Amino acid sequence: MTHSTIFAFSKHVGEEVTFRGWVYNLRSSGKIAFLQIRDGSGFAQAIVSETAVPAPVWESTQKLTIESSVELTGTVSKHPKKEEYELQVSGLTVLQIAQEYPIGKKEHGPDFLLNERHLWLRAGTQWAIQRVRNTIINATYEYLNKEGYIKIDAPVLTPTSCEDTTELFELNYFDEGKAYLTQSGQLYLEAAMFSHGRVFDFGPVFRAEKSKTRRHLTEFWMMDAEAAFVDYIGNMDIQEGLMKYIVAAVLERNVVELGVLERNVAPLQTAVTKPFVRITHAEAVEKLHVLGSDIAADDDLGADDETILTQQYDVPMFIMKYPAKVKAFYMKPDPEDSSRVLCSDLLAPEGYGEIIGGSQRIDDYDLLVRKMEEFNLPRAPFEWYLDLRKYGSVPHSGFGYGLERITAWITGTKHIRETIPFPRMINRITP
Amino acid sequence: MTHSTIFAFSKHVGEEVTFRGWVYNLRSSGKIAFLQIRDGSGFAQAIVSETAVPAPVWESTQKLTIESSVELTGTVSKHPKKEEYELQVSGLTVLQIAQEYPIGKKEHGPDFLLNERHLWLRAGTQWAIQRVRNTIINATYEYLNKEGYIKIDAPVLTPTSCEDTTELFELNYFDEGKAYLTQSGQLYLEAAMFSHGRVFDFGPVFRAEKSKTRRHLTEFWMMDAEAAFVDYIGNMDIQEGLMKYIVAAVLERNVVELGVLERNVAPLQTAVTKPFVRITHAEAVEKLHVLGSDIAADDDLGADDETILTQQYDVPMFIMKYPAKVKAFYMKPDPEDSSRVLCSDLLAPEGYGEIIGGSQRIDDYDLLVRKMEEFNLPRAPFEWYLDLRKYGSVPHSGFGYGLERITAWITGTKHIRETIPFPRMINRITP
Repeated sequence: MTHSTIFAFSKHVGEEVTFRGWVYNLRSSGKIAFLQIRDGSGFAQAIVSETAVPAPVWESTQKLTIESSVELTGTVSKHPKKEEYELQVSGLTVLQIAQEYPIGKKEHGPDFLLNERHLWLRAGTQWAIQRVRNTIINATYEYLNKEGYIKIDAPVLTPTSCEDTTELFELNYFDEGKAYLTQSGQLYLEAAMFSHGRVFDFGPVFRAEKSKTRRHLTEFWMMDAEAAFVDYIGNMDIQEGLMKYIVAAVLERNVVELGVLERNVAPLQTAVTKPFVRITHAEAVEKLHVLGSDIAADDDLGADDETILTQQYDVPMFIMKYPAKVKAFYMKPDPEDSSRVLCSDLLAPEGYGEIIGGSQRIDDYDLLVRKMEEFNLPRAPFEWYLDLRKYGSVPHSGFGYGLERITAWITGTKHIRETIPFPRMINRITP
Repeated sequence: MTHSTIFAFSKHVGEEVTFRGWVYNLRSSGKIAFLQIRDGSGFAQAIVSETAVPAPVWESTQKLTIESSVELTGTVSKHPKKEEYELQVSGLTVLQIAQEYPIGKKEHGPDFLLNERHLWLRAGTQWAIQRVRNTIINATYEYLNKEGYIKIDAPVLTPTSCEDTTELFELNYFDEGKAYLTQSGQLYLEAAMFSHGRVFDFGPVFRAEKSKTRRHLTEFWMMDAEAAFVDYIGNMDIQEGLMKYIVAAVLERNVVELGVLERNVAPLQTAVTKPFVRITHAEAVEKLHVLGSDIAADDDLGADDETILTQQYDVPMFIMKYPAKVKAFYMKPDPEDSSRVLCSDLLAPEGYGEIIGGSQRIDDYDLLVRKMEEFNLPRAPFEWYLDLRKYGSVPHSGFGYGLERITAWITGTKHIRETIPFPRMINRITP
């Protein structure tokens, strides 16, 4: 008897296998029971025929409920037309008969499902989203390793904030005063870059933001990457290479999952094969005016602007050279127009909007000091960061991606709360 | 002209290459300057000879200081006996002359170095430790992927604590009351395990512990793994496979780094080839009595006990079946002795002590409820966790490893504060 997973059924067609899992759904037509079984690796139909199994097996089958755990033995066969596999059951052992499962196959409201998140994760769509998320994570490590990056874990507990100070979670830190949960590891990565050349972090970041939109979470996963001797153009090249690698990996490894999600893969295939659009912020504003937006020339792009703009393109687009005043203090001014900075935001198509933000960093000590003064930043907490421009400063660039936003786009999920296992929002900290 | 990194010099012996980096050290003997250069990927000696370079290059060389950033061109040669490479310099461009570097080659105290952590990371030993840590991270992903695990990110912000409630960082969470920083993602992983079969998390965890030992940090990285249909023996097999894979990966990928650290690799090689020791807690107590410890039969092993015990073995050792009262509520009782649980701690050799803790989990609903009562745990915050034993409960096991403790052992670092890029301790939250 071969132990197998559903994922490996394709290797065992015509053979008898045994495996364990859960009853995802079931129906019976008199003398035949059709069980939809999931085992974590995939889904398969198991057919129990009263005439083909010993009487105790048939009796056990009659007792099964949704989410009951079972061990099954049977012969694998392939669906004549689809990449689906079936099991003709010869043996079945019940591990536990599940109590009445609270999540039915009918529609539930989001609050109910979020309250039952620990169970909702078992739903086919939620299973598929987490599997795609897992591929995105792995593909990120693979690509960055290949490009010579090493992982440097930036701290979560920080004595000060990197960007906006109004949206920080604050806590008491022994006798050291207040500590804050990080919003970005970037400044720390810049320090480590001087040791390793190319570094990235990948961990949870926090925004105590009172926004209740489909694109906001208070806790989410961010990947920051920083590279020495790379300018803002090279920075976009790395981002485009990374995104193409990620999307290609999902298309290759998650065929079943994209099917479960009914994701139209055409836009994903296009993102792999076609160059990304690159336009300046000034050009974007012009296009937005044509599209009916009243955005001012020196405004940041709002979520609505991003949505209508990205609906015009079938690939991700870089918006370069935003006005300096809407971006962070550490971004290098455009030598051709000092009111703008050498940055880029990458917007996903199909209306998804920003997934990556990046820029070339200021490498000159005096300029960085001036910029901090302009931004009214206190000097003392940033002395260590200024040090990096004293001891062998080099041109360098970096970017940060939001894992949930990328997962939302690739899986075609409208609300990013479904793309993280246990979402945290302003009104939700459970389960 | 070929662009190269120092790491890739071995492919360019006899060729002229160009690369950028920092002056790690320098000395001059009249007409020849010996520059030790680092570029993030490695270290190499660059030799500038006054008679072999144009006058401006020699003048630039005379101005160099420690940590100055440079672009170099020259011909690569190999050290006749060692795996070291040299560059006969033909061109040198200064990117920035560094100000006087605060970290000298002399001895500094730990407080000074920790205050300068953003610069100290550039030191050879610190560079090497982070490179090994990076390999440990990658090897963990590789092994777990191969074993069918997918990554599930457990939340950092939690409404309650998993284990000890006295050592939690607390913060205000909007109108939802208090939130706490996670100490372990395990309970959340158990929920996701029912969707995916095998899952792991890997992220920062927090202990507001007032301990000031060489083995304590307030923020550190933990990897938790949870697998359905695995008992406590199979759980140890997975851990042993993972640790052997990690150590083998470091031995293969970090030859230079282990050399920089002057790490004796014999114990690491032994850990790859020889089976780990597996003894029960009762046997360990017996051995400890012989070694002079006064540990009681139902005591937890203290740090000193772990140190003297692991000095007796040349491989990591599992201590199985601890007394139930010193372990967590969710561990499955030993059917042969209900005062003990089906757990294991993995202790690293050479006195390093605990690096992994794991156990089979209670899968019976009624028993779990009774255990929670025994441990005086409130029922309401754990209802979702109890749900997991109602809807298709299965036997399952899991474990958690401390990344910094594993890195400390493999790199031979005494204090784990050097194994994390930016350590957080009770008296340190900067830089």
